[in-house]
Amino acid sequence: MLQQSDTLQARMEEVKAQVEAALDAAMSELPEGELTDAMRYACLGGKKLRAFLVMESARLHGVTDAAALPVACAVEALHAYSLVHDDLPAMDDDDLRRGLPTVHVQWSEATAILAGDALQSLAFEMLTDEAIGDAGARLRLIAALAHAVGAAGMVYGQMLDIIAEESEIAPDIAGITRMQVAKTGALIAFSAMSGAIIAGAETEGLRIYAAKLGLAFQVHDDILDVTGDEETTGKRVGKDAGAGKATFVSVLGLDAARAREKELIDKAVASLSPYGEEAGNLRDLARFVIDRQS
Amino acid sequence: MLQQSDTLQARMEEVKAQVEAALDAAMSELPEGELTDAMRYACLGGKKLRAFLVMESARLHGVTDAAALPVACAVEALHAYSLVHDDLPAMDDDDLRRGLPTVHVQWSEATAILAGDALQSLAFEMLTDEAIGDAGARLRLIAALAHAVGAAGMVYGQMLDIIAEESEIAPDIAGITRMQVAKTGALIAFSAMSGAIIAGAETEGLRIYAAKLGLAFQVHDDILDVTGDEETTGKRVGKDAGAGKATFVSVLGLDAARAREKELIDKAVASLSPYGEEAGNLRDLARFVIDRQS
Repeated sequence: MLQQSDTLQARMEEVKAQVEAALDAAMSELPEGELTDAMRYACLGGKKLRAFLVMESARLHGVTDAAALPVACAVEALHAYSLVHDDLPAMDDDDLRRGLPTVHVQWSEATAILAGDALQSLAFEMLTDEAIGDAGARLRLIAALAHAVGAAGMVYGQMLDIIAEESEIAPDIAGITRMQVAKTGALIAFSAMSGAIIAGAETEGLRIYAAKLGLAFQVHDDILDVTGDEETTGKRVGKDAGAGKATFVSVLGLDAARAREKELIDKAVASLSPYGEEAGNLRDLARFVIDRQS
Repeated sequence: MLQQSDTLQARMEEVKAQVEAALDAAMSELPEGELTDAMRYACLGGKKLRAFLVMESARLHGVTDAAALPVACAVEALHAYSLVHDDLPAMDDDDLRRGLPTVHVQWSEATAILAGDALQSLAFEMLTDEAIGDAGARLRLIAALAHAVGAAGMVYGQMLDIIAEESEIAPDIAGITRMQVAKTGALIAFSAMSGAIIAGAETEGLRIYAAKLGLAFQVHDDILDVTGDEETTGKRVGKDAGAGKATFVSVLGLDAARAREKELIDKAVASLSPYGEEAGNLRDLARFVIDRQS
């Protein structure tokens, strides 16, 4: 019998392969050239954590893999757009992502801006796919995603992050939490709730799970920025500390940050109790999020 | 009795006021701050030509103003995003738009990138509005808009434009036309067809009208870049010629460009014959597009 962690890893790799293949197929229908190349490049690699949340959330609500796959692809296209724009010189100015040069380094800033823009359009186009379900389900997803990533969600969080960096007053833990809940939490929450949204089901347990998981994910990213190395994480480390940026680690300290992520994951796992055994992969994922080295 | 041109101008100003008020109301629901301020700023001014096309297209297909208004807002939010990103230093590097400093000049590049991103999300969120019609109609709009503005539409055209500028071989008239059909034509075509999309009606006449109108609009923009002044146009002029950029005017010459836009508008007007008297505003608009000074 497989270990639980093997099961999780196998399932995550399966989802990643499915999503990368489906995204590649979608790109094949676009005009060939630099723009599509950059979009394809931006979607490769990474753990496809959000896609995994979509597929597991769907399974918990009786939604088939075939119905959930376009949603998983949409979420990853959207996430890829946010990374491409976040890495731009005018934003975080990162040159390394998933172990490879960022899009504006590989091509140009203009290409990175446009590839990000087109990935966002593609995400919404994918959510109109009839395979997902009836028109009402697709519209609920589109409205929820647009809200999660727009000026009251992810992009709002990115703006708070930039304002905090430019400010002379470092944010406190409440400020960092508010920023991260929007910046990374909103899309993770959408992913975890997407199966319930399709099924038109109650989502309270998954909502709490997603909120705690998203925050724990960010706390662990901040820990890896201090304790990780570039080869393993695939991105520059020590960047936040170098820039004097306020993070969960800089404000709480390393030990308290580790305690905080553990506490968050315990709450995330507890919130899954209504789902019973079926939520095993999501429980494993929660533990993985704070054990991961990249 | 009003002159036709008075009727057109009055109707365009009415639509502009309605759309700006509705966009302002949508922004009021977003978190206050720099991001929302920049989004609001980006949506003000201009002729709201695309919104006008939406409202007229709706009227021709028996769709109410109340149903069409969120679509008109979505199109203008989308258009505003494209202008904000197009004006960025890494793209066209423009400092003046609609007579005011561009968003990255007024705030920062990061704010302009994020405001554009959030305006795109807002456009799709607005298309989920129940006021528009049944779920099927809304999904058809979302799919059509996403396709029109993504990597096979507007953004593809922007990429072709950048590639042409970087290339040592100047594009010929076919190349310029192909680029502009995507860059500005796709969103204009969506706007002109949106009423038919909502009604689930045939759109052949409006499709031809929109294609010709969009191209004539761009030819006239190229003419104004040579013959206009900054005060009247509200943007920098002589910029394309200064940059040695291939335009309809640089390739065809001014007289032939004027003949070309006239020919396009004649065809646009002719394509409206199935709609009879009801299409009077669209006929007037077509003539306005090549008479305008800004």
